[in-house]
Amino acid sequence: MSAHVAPFPQVDHQRALFPEGLALDCGMAIAPLAVAYRTYGRLNAARSNAILVCHALTGDQYLAEPQPLTGKPGWWQTIVGPGRPLDTDRYFLICANVLGGCMGSTGPREEMTDAEGRPLGRPWGTDFPNVTIRDMVRAQKKLVEDLGIERLLAVVGGSMGGMQVLEWAATFPEAVYAAAPIATAAYHSAQNIAFHEVGRTSIHADPDWRGGRYWEDGRVPAKGLSVARMVAHITYLSEQALTRKFGRRLRGASALTFLEDVFEVESYLRHQGSTFVRRFDANSYLTITRAMDYFDLAAEHGGDLSAAFRGTRTRFFVASFSSDWLFPTTESRAIVRALNAAAANVSFVEIASDKGHDAFLLEEPDFHRALGGFLAGCADRLGI
Amino acid sequence: MSAHVAPFPQVDHQRALFPEGLALDCGMAIAPLAVAYRTYGRLNAARSNAILVCHALTGDQYLAEPQPLTGKPGWWQTIVGPGRPLDTDRYFLICANVLGGCMGSTGPREEMTDAEGRPLGRPWGTDFPNVTIRDMVRAQKKLVEDLGIERLLAVVGGSMGGMQVLEWAATFPEAVYAAAPIATAAYHSAQNIAFHEVGRTSIHADPDWRGGRYWEDGRVPAKGLSVARMVAHITYLSEQALTRKFGRRLRGASALTFLEDVFEVESYLRHQGSTFVRRFDANSYLTITRAMDYFDLAAEHGGDLSAAFRGTRTRFFVASFSSDWLFPTTESRAIVRALNAAAANVSFVEIASDKGHDAFLLEEPDFHRALGGFLAGCADRLGI
Repeated sequence: MSAHVAPFPQVDHQRALFPEGLALDCGMAIAPLAVAYRTYGRLNAARSNAILVCHALTGDQYLAEPQPLTGKPGWWQTIVGPGRPLDTDRYFLICANVLGGCMGSTGPREEMTDAEGRPLGRPWGTDFPNVTIRDMVRAQKKLVEDLGIERLLAVVGGSMGGMQVLEWAATFPEAVYAAAPIATAAYHSAQNIAFHEVGRTSIHADPDWRGGRYWEDGRVPAKGLSVARMVAHITYLSEQALTRKFGRRLRGASALTFLEDVFEVESYLRHQGSTFVRRFDANSYLTITRAMDYFDLAAEHGGDLSAAFRGTRTRFFVASFSSDWLFPTTESRAIVRALNAAAANVSFVEIASDKGHDAFLLEEPDFHRALGGFLAGCADRLGI
Repeated sequence: MSAHVAPFPQVDHQRALFPEGLALDCGMAIAPLAVAYRTYGRLNAARSNAILVCHALTGDQYLAEPQPLTGKPGWWQTIVGPGRPLDTDRYFLICANVLGGCMGSTGPREEMTDAEGRPLGRPWGTDFPNVTIRDMVRAQKKLVEDLGIERLLAVVGGSMGGMQVLEWAATFPEAVYAAAPIATAAYHSAQNIAFHEVGRTSIHADPDWRGGRYWEDGRVPAKGLSVARMVAHITYLSEQALTRKFGRRLRGASALTFLEDVFEVESYLRHQGSTFVRRFDANSYLTITRAMDYFDLAAEHGGDLSAAFRGTRTRFFVASFSSDWLFPTTESRAIVRALNAAAANVSFVEIASDKGHDAFLLEEPDFHRALGGFLAGCADRLGI
């Protein structure tokens, strides 16, 4: 990658390289293809105990170890480990940075290549093609094959990760024994598209955006990206969670004496925004939010969601959280209805939680028990 | 006002001027005080048929006539007129631009004055003091007295207008025969504060903001203010309303061919943002959102909301809308509970609507009948 691209430190990510590249839904091909990934646990001799974990919009492959830029624990640390629902004594976990991401997989921050795959000495930036959830899944499939795995024990993921789970089950049904789409939907709603558009507009409005060529002078559109993160962060929490965390607590003695950072919830949000820009690339944010907005699994199957799962033998575990208003339970129920119409093997649970969409990432014992039980049952059936 | 302040055209608003000014909750005094207002219908000889209508965050005094900057119908045109709920054959309607607004009342866009009330040749801008909902109500009280009205037949308003209604009833109970707080709350929630903070951060992030002194070179922080409007606009609508209006309809033939304005909902939001900056001042937006955030009527009365209404003889009509997630029904119920605890005369209705918070501004026949019936009943009792 070109030297002047360093809005955040370079990290030497573990990557699989595919010189043949990938044909994308938009009609373009991209080559070579790099998929950055991490694994946890050990692949058994039968190669039958692999679980692919798909990350959400701003997640990455550092599932259960410190994130190299922030030093913070992996995004799903609480659920991974010996004896935990994602039991590293029993399963071989794979987590890959999505296509279009900014943690080592091919994406806007990586070096651009021409149609023959020759490096062009500058990052893709806004020239990076539009990608879809299905493109992300196709890239993951290459990695899984490269690891010598024909069939995954399970694909698991929440939010955008859940979209990938659904796409895996629809596109590669024979490669997925079990699928756990969590806190997700089979399409992105108008309201969710609208929230994403606020974030994108805010990035575009930042003078440091410079038409997406901010990398030329080593700057990043930090203010715009920070506002995008702030608005998204509100949608990840419930009103109850915000109230419990902050209520209307003031930062100073009196609300009326100053105009900024009056309430604790404000400084919390600002902090969320400012730390985010140190670990995430604005062009990646645009690319990935777009991929989520495009997602409409029924539309890929003639407008009939159940057609996406016709004849499937995959076992499904669908979970939602009662206070999640970004991906509400009604959208999980729509997935379950389609799976039922396809006569699929499906279990569904709505977890009572007041933590909002973020609940899937947090300590939710009922959820962990349910997911852990589902995976263990599948492994038992396969004699793992 | 200084000549270089012209982000939008100057309008000669009808105003009442109070040379003695107003003492504010923050401890400052502001003098002179101007209150821009409009009236509809005729005040009767007994001066007993006046209804004060309080506008919301981005509303103004042009209740039922074209807004002079946009030429669009008044914001509550549908509910005002002969035979309508706000019957101009029967009532004398008053609507005033709030203190801190930008349509002629004293606010950040108006000429700054010193402690002795002497004009300083430049706008207030960010030097405008923090104001509260109670300050807005005190300014309105001066106007009402100036019009020779001792007691209002009713005070009516939705959203921030409803906050003013509650404050009127609490602060000047003898001056309010009836009060109709609609789609509102007795305090601003953590989630609502958070959404406001996104908008404020976006305005501050705009390079044309220039520390609030954007008026110096006749520019406005249009991009930042536009993003603030976009995010706020999403909160005014329900998911159902957005889906019904736009769903996932694309603007072009294919979602994958371009990165901007792919979905209709996006261009709609952008349009909302860009038209807003032509009629609204950024410093006013900051001032008024802050006033909403400060609002906590219980806190003004020792933490007990019912204490705000102790001994009241005012008749209350509380209304909420089932799909309003910005000011949900639970918050109206909390108001009703406090009024019940104060043994107040109160009726409450939750209107079934899928239009979200905006429903109070739209054609909602059940709501119009209920409000119209309440006001007519009050007028009947007073022999109007």
